[in-house]
Amino acid sequence: MIQPVITLTTDFGLSDHYAGTMKGVILGIAPAAQIVDITHEVAPFEILDGAYTIAQAYRYFPKRTIHVIVVDPGVGTERRPILAEAAGQYFIAPDNGVLTMIYEREKHKVRVIQNERFFLKNRSTTFHGRDIFAPSAAWLARGTRPSMFGNLINGYAQLGLLKPQRMGKRIWSGTVLKADRFGNLITNFPIADFADIRGRAFEMQVGLRLVDRLCSNYAQAAPGELFAIVGSSGYIEVSVNQGSAAKQLGAGAGAPVELTLY
Amino acid sequence: MIQPVITLTTDFGLSDHYAGTMKGVILGIAPAAQIVDITHEVAPFEILDGAYTIAQAYRYFPKRTIHVIVVDPGVGTERRPILAEAAGQYFIAPDNGVLTMIYEREKHKVRVIQNERFFLKNRSTTFHGRDIFAPSAAWLARGTRPSMFGNLINGYAQLGLLKPQRMGKRIWSGTVLKADRFGNLITNFPIADFADIRGRAFEMQVGLRLVDRLCSNYAQAAPGELFAIVGSSGYIEVSVNQGSAAKQLGAGAGAPVELTLY
Amino acid sequence: MIQPVITLTTDFGLSDHYAGTMKGVILGIAPAAQIVDITHEVAPFEILDGAYTIAQAYRYFPKRTIHVIVVDPGVGTERRPILAEAAGQYFIAPDNGVLTMIYEREKHKVRVIQNERFFLKNRSTTFHGRDIFAPSAAWLARGTRPSMFGNLINGYAQLGLLKPQRMGKRIWSGTVLKADRFGNLITNFPIADFADIRGRAFEMQVGLRLVDRLCSNYAQAAPGELFAIVGSSGYIEVSVNQGSAAKQLGAGAGAPVELTLY
Repeated sequence: MIQPVITLTTDFGLSDHYAGTMKGVILGIAPAAQIVDITHEVAPFEILDGAYTIAQAYRYFPKRTIHVIVVDPGVGTERRPILAEAAGQYFIAPDNGVLTMIYEREKHKVRVIQNERFFLKNRSTTFHGRDIFAPSAAWLARGTRPSMFGNLINGYAQLGLLKPQRMGKRIWSGTVLKADRFGNLITNFPIADFADIRGRAFEMQVGLRLVDRLCSNYAQAAPGELFAIVGSSGYIEVSVNQGSAAKQLGAGAGAPVELTLY
Repeated sequence: MIQPVITLTTDFGLSDHYAGTMKGVILGIAPAAQIVDITHEVAPFEILDGAYTIAQAYRYFPKRTIHVIVVDPGVGTERRPILAEAAGQYFIAPDNGVLTMIYEREKHKVRVIQNERFFLKNRSTTFHGRDIFAPSAAWLARGTRPSMFGNLINGYAQLGLLKPQRMGKRIWSGTVLKADRFGNLITNFPIADFADIRGRAFEMQVGLRLVDRLCSNYAQAAPGELFAIVGSSGYIEVSVNQGSAAKQLGAGAGAPVELTLY
Repeated sequence: MIQPVITLTTDFGLSDHYAGTMKGVILGIAPAAQIVDITHEVAPFEILDGAYTIAQAYRYFPKRTIHVIVVDPGVGTERRPILAEAAGQYFIAPDNGVLTMIYEREKHKVRVIQNERFFLKNRSTTFHGRDIFAPSAAWLARGTRPSMFGNLINGYAQLGLLKPQRMGKRIWSGTVLKADRFGNLITNFPIADFADIRGRAFEMQVGLRLVDRLCSNYAQAAPGELFAIVGSSGYIEVSVNQGSAAKQLGAGAGAPVELTLY
């Protein structure tokens, strides 16, 4: 028997019991589940950071994986819990746009999770990760059909403008999606849409600095040199060999990026 | 066959090999064990933080789960390793009070772990997590009977005064048990004992600030507003919507809290 | 059926999707694998820190465990991926010396990993943990013979001078391998080679301070007192009871250590 895989992506951090408690709930319902942490260090309340993280990871998981994403500033309000199906996998999350990048890339259908028999009893208004999302994922892992959780819906929440906007013939305006642990600045310029960067002169402005070199690996640049690179993310990234572009540029998630192709 | 669940709660952090090495020891003895991290970020040497963490998590784990708690400033001294049974689960820890909140809530019995055949050979005086606690948990997971580990004892260590003290007709004096990742201040006022807060006027003083509003979810408050809430912990918590009460009040674990009910 | 154990030791941190994505790749190929994190907090690009970490952990894992170590400043260059066999276990890593301490302790053989059929398609130049190391480990866990990955090689990379050097009749010069979470300074003086420290007067200089007391556990020292101890690492460590030797001495990995035995 294959163990169903359940992944967790949250902003709960690792210094509290929160992530561990969710795992207890899951294993109480679905003892054979294989639980995998994507990260619990999504920036607190940052829905875009969560959206980017799960969008990077899901493609590498097997079919039928159940992804639980809890970045949920609206916990306890009327925002709905949802169950999305896309790419042969499942996504359980609050309906706040954290699945936007999945919706953009994959055919999908979305249900509201409304069948309270899959929730914990005595649920809190502040920890739906434990009380709603974890048990729903576990029941799904045990074989509960998605339709049992609730009805298909349209009009689920989506984040706006995740793609660069064309500002002129040769100019696009975008943003930094994430500064990673190494200080790489991951922009929202998909390499698939901007493959021209490989053959043409370009300038990418981030903060006060211009980047005009594309390297094919980190070591190609001199230590400390700033350059663009086709990252493992599928986006153009701005990096420094053995250093932090984020620190060198004083830039992070949300910083504007301007690309000019010559 | 159900895999036995073994949880880990330690102050070892995640930047060393310590937690991983404990898992190697466990899997060498009990290959089918399902190991779950509660947290390894208990504040170093803070027994109360460990006590709070495991007390929050255990209830959500299945029967027969084995919880290993290693917050152990006395490692290598005469303090005893113990095995407690409570709520149909097992708790392996140093006898330093880290299980106090379990003892307070559940019928329990406690044994000293003294059978050295379950320890690693050549054990160190500084890493009993690896040398004593992990292998004991693994042998228990394999089906060793608790009585094989050692005799029942009384007089095991307990932390004092974990509950608020009544200071006057309407006044109780308590403390902050924990500041969580989001800056929520979790007090030691159990909502079960102070349910009146839901219907009556109250003032809760933390640091130099008075809190007199009870919200039922975070979003009910204005951004930046300080309020009390019935937390997922079962305690009254002091929070700020999309902000950190800990930072706003300059308060953390151990800070005094005074509650007046009108 | 025993689940094959795959461990991960990286400098990827826990705030990105990187470690989680590697696990997705592994479970897609080897669904029964039991994945264990040693740590993802190796200091970025610090090969010696990675070398120390895996050398501390591997001995405690069962035979046939597959250890994946990704501390890889040369990712995307000509540095080779390798598969080492030692101590009945497997080690998959970049050929940059991160396995030096394994080579020093164990009989071993080393292969280059060159069979691209075990890699992900469309691999990046910046994330070989996902594209090369994780899938290779998973195929090995599924039973692929090591010889299928590539040929045995000599001349694999090794870090120099990991052992203390004798500077005079009674004087050795060494270094700090690691400052751990608790501020313990783990030196490169193996207790096996310097057992005399137990019976003889000695002075160990770290930073500007001299340590001349050996304690057998932390609590033997007064709070705040600096002392040497035979650590769980098998090395002489410099510690402070309930304090941080690293902070007190302003020392960390790489700091010089001088030992005089009288």
